[in-house]
Amino acid sequence: MSGAQHWKTALTHTEPNCVSIRGHDISELMGTHSFAACVYLLMQGELPGPGIEVVVDAVLCACIDHGVTPPSALATRTVASTGASLSASVAAGIMAINRHHGGAIENCALSLGEVIKRAEGNGDLDAAAAELLADWSSIGKRVPGFGHRLHTADPRTARMLGIAGEAGVAGSFCAAAKAMEKAFASAGKTLPLNVDGAAAAVLADLGFEPPVMNGFFMIARCAGLIAHAREENQRMKPMRVIDPIDHEYDGPDLRQS
Amino acid sequence: MSGAQHWKTALTHTEPNCVSIRGHDISELMGTHSFAACVYLLMQGELPGPGIEVVVDAVLCACIDHGVTPPSALATRTVASTGASLSASVAAGIMAINRHHGGAIENCALSLGEVIKRAEGNGDLDAAAAELLADWSSIGKRVPGFGHRLHTADPRTARMLGIAGEAGVAGSFCAAAKAMEKAFASAGKTLPLNVDGAAAAVLADLGFEPPVMNGFFMIARCAGLIAHAREENQRMKPMRVIDPIDHEYDGPDLRQS
Amino acid sequence: MSGAQHWKTALTHTEPNCVSIRGHDISELMGTHSFAACVYLLMQGELPGPGIEVVVDAVLCACIDHGVTPPSALATRTVASTGASLSASVAAGIMAINRHHGGAIENCALSLGEVIKRAEGNGDLDAAAAELLADWSSIGKRVPGFGHRLHTADPRTARMLGIAGEAGVAGSFCAAAKAMEKAFASAGKTLPLNVDGAAAAVLADLGFEPPVMNGFFMIARCAGLIAHAREENQRMKPMRVIDPIDHEYDGPDLRQS
Amino acid sequence: MSGAQHWKTALTHTEPNCVSIRGHDISELMGTHSFAACVYLLMQGELPGPGIEVVVDAVLCACIDHGVTPPSALATRTVASTGASLSASVAAGIMAINRHHGGAIENCALSLGEVIKRAEGNGDLDAAAAELLADWSSIGKRVPGFGHRLHTADPRTARMLGIAGEAGVAGSFCAAAKAMEKAFASAGKTLPLNVDGAAAAVLADLGFEPPVMNGFFMIARCAGLIAHAREENQRMKPMRVIDPIDHEYDGPDLRQS
Repeated sequence: MSGAQHWKTALTHTEPNCVSIRGHDISELMGTHSFAACVYLLMQGELPGPGIEVVVDAVLCACIDHGVTPPSALATRTVASTGASLSASVAAGIMAINRHHGGAIENCALSLGEVIKRAEGNGDLDAAAAELLADWSSIGKRVPGFGHRLHTADPRTARMLGIAGEAGVAGSFCAAAKAMEKAFASAGKTLPLNVDGAAAAVLADLGFEPPVMNGFFMIARCAGLIAHAREENQRMKPMRVIDPIDHEYDGPDLRQS
Repeated sequence: MSGAQHWKTALTHTEPNCVSIRGHDISELMGTHSFAACVYLLMQGELPGPGIEVVVDAVLCACIDHGVTPPSALATRTVASTGASLSASVAAGIMAINRHHGGAIENCALSLGEVIKRAEGNGDLDAAAAELLADWSSIGKRVPGFGHRLHTADPRTARMLGIAGEAGVAGSFCAAAKAMEKAFASAGKTLPLNVDGAAAAVLADLGFEPPVMNGFFMIARCAGLIAHAREENQRMKPMRVIDPIDHEYDGPDLRQS
Repeated sequence: MSGAQHWKTALTHTEPNCVSIRGHDISELMGTHSFAACVYLLMQGELPGPGIEVVVDAVLCACIDHGVTPPSALATRTVASTGASLSASVAAGIMAINRHHGGAIENCALSLGEVIKRAEGNGDLDAAAAELLADWSSIGKRVPGFGHRLHTADPRTARMLGIAGEAGVAGSFCAAAKAMEKAFASAGKTLPLNVDGAAAAVLADLGFEPPVMNGFFMIARCAGLIAHAREENQRMKPMRVIDPIDHEYDGPDLRQS
Repeated sequence: MSGAQHWKTALTHTEPNCVSIRGHDISELMGTHSFAACVYLLMQGELPGPGIEVVVDAVLCACIDHGVTPPSALATRTVASTGASLSASVAAGIMAINRHHGGAIENCALSLGEVIKRAEGNGDLDAAAAELLADWSSIGKRVPGFGHRLHTADPRTARMLGIAGEAGVAGSFCAAAKAMEKAFASAGKTLPLNVDGAAAAVLADLGFEPPVMNGFFMIARCAGLIAHAREENQRMKPMRVIDPIDHEYDGPDLRQS
């Protein structure tokens, strides 16, 4: 077996009594920068400007939880109900984040990149989106990031694009997402951009690489999974049969933020 | 087998085109509240005041990454090097967060609660801490949250307590943590409060329940694990032998935040 | 940080073109010894006699699958339905094996060991079991390994004890399990030994250590979880809502083995 | 959201006091059939003849463990060293079974199927293998299942093919594997069939579907991972730095089986 090789990392430096993230002393980041800013720093290598920070925060907030029906919440609750530790319960939920759930962000960004590339000649994103949709439909390939099993007008989507617009960071990927939504409508399909698709457009316009994009959903939903594991252990009996349909929300009514 | 029972959840309500967290419309939270505030809302049921929010943000920032040597980073990199998906790589790292790594927060909070209880009569936390330490030492029981394999004065610890103090949320748990640190010193042991212990003190003073406390480490470190999985896939060959000692930081030098 | 230390392992030796398990060349084990015998060798350090081998095989067969309702099968199917890899789907199911499901073997063996210890003076296991049951009931502590949510006379239990008896390996733990079953009946509780409890009694009489006992359930059920992941991917649509009650078996009718 | 639908499973039927695998009463399988036979039954729907059973057993034995250096063993030990449960430690190791480690069986079987298909006209497997190798090399595509970082003549490979030959079950996939090995040699590459590749050839000749093939490695290695988790907890200190190179085998010397 070839032995271990000396290797390098550019993320975090630790030495006795000092931890720095991408060159920034962690104790200076604490109290002066939000967690969203630190996530951006860790992934992108630089601290974000204030416009970017609010967008990253909005993406994380949008993905924090979606109730008890997503497979990630059900996987966490199922494992938690057997007496597992919090970390094992949460890990089981994270493992349910894949291309059919929370994991369409990366693939949607790649698709939108394809639309942008096709429009390079004439800048006509609408035509490029319609063309890509037609091509992919003909070979049975789906465009990820559109349509939702519950929402026809996902409240998180418009808001996320709106915040990116106000912050001045919406660019060609956000435009390509809207073009694709129009292409679906023209093709007679009601498949509006969903929260994964909006996150893809916004994160791509912020310059994130596709392979880390699903990670934003994981970080955010990690919070939701912890809350589900805790509620399962606190309110439910171990080994109960978890009905994925017959449940009810008994928290506070809708109120002003 | 007894059938499934109707059940209730108080976390998140979803209906077509509306998602609300603890009664707050998620699209109103986006852009107006930080992710840290939303995490607090999800766990505690109410939005935090600004003082609390900055403290939660600081706890998350403190735990975001600690380089390549913690077992969670090594577990994620080991799994990522075999060709696993991002979610499986991250989940493996989350599973390494247990009582010996990142998972001392809950148990430290319970220990500090014990000190507070012992001081109830006369309010003398120093005496209570010394007494608990002596009692536990005599039966070989460790007090979690003190000492670190690398840091003698963990830079994250003092900063976290400082931020909590400035924000006016440091209370009896922060005081008990300092009392315990003194008790260790008096007993001739150099075991300063570590980042787990500081998080325990601060989160307990914010009113979080011990069973969710380790979750803050998981949410934050999830970001670090994603960065490690990505760097592993981008810079390293699959199936390399990962040396836990012979590595080097080649990112930016220390710079101003 | 203290550096890595030279360390030792007594399980498997590898060198170029040779792999040996506990001193036995793996290519000599193949074709001459069953997988059950190799599992015994790996855990216990010696190859089993034929009587032991048949018992280990019976324990593995008994635990191989229990249909779609156990939490491990549901966790695997939930994760598989999101597009996860086979290894991630199976891992999620393994994580659902804990003290409330498949993970009572270790704790049951420890309880039966307690009964045997209490009977050390006079050898009266029935009295010791009744005494332990009374003591534990008075403090609300359950004896694990008894009772099942579906079976009143678990077909796997009697068969496993029968095979151990025929093989001449049933000893004090099997006797303690029967004594405990009688103690439950005398106390007016219908809590017959379940498959976890029978595995505990048999594996303890074979000399396995309690901390590896739940591992037998994991090895065996791993096969079931693979079959569930495959059936989910082959017969079902991604992201379906998995009803834990409303399903039906459509495989072959009961037939002679 | 569309509701849950009635669904069907053909694996295992449970009713009070009866569990049957593919129509076979589990209590009749116990004591009369090996675990290997039950695994075959669960995956293939029928009990195997004795020739098949010995081959399945040999595949499971071959994959049971490979010492402390594979990523699955390191992932399990890393997680176990943090205080994780046995099931979480084992699950982390299972998650490291992917295309670069233990997960080449499926892809190798698909490649060998491609060789067989190319030889359909004239039955010349050697020519078909050489052709496929040349085609794939020209586009930088690797043929999985050949070469090993430690072994040049993997002892498990020849033995597995030998057992399949003696049992009369070696067919076109085993022949294609040998043809591919020759093609590599003719192309001047020393890439002998490895244990993944041999398992692929043998399992394909037994009629298993490629998507379950990696599962055999998982079932078998599950036993190894349990042994590693146990040895880590028993012989090592928590949170040690696990050196992937500087370790030594201190178990029994090579001995007769």
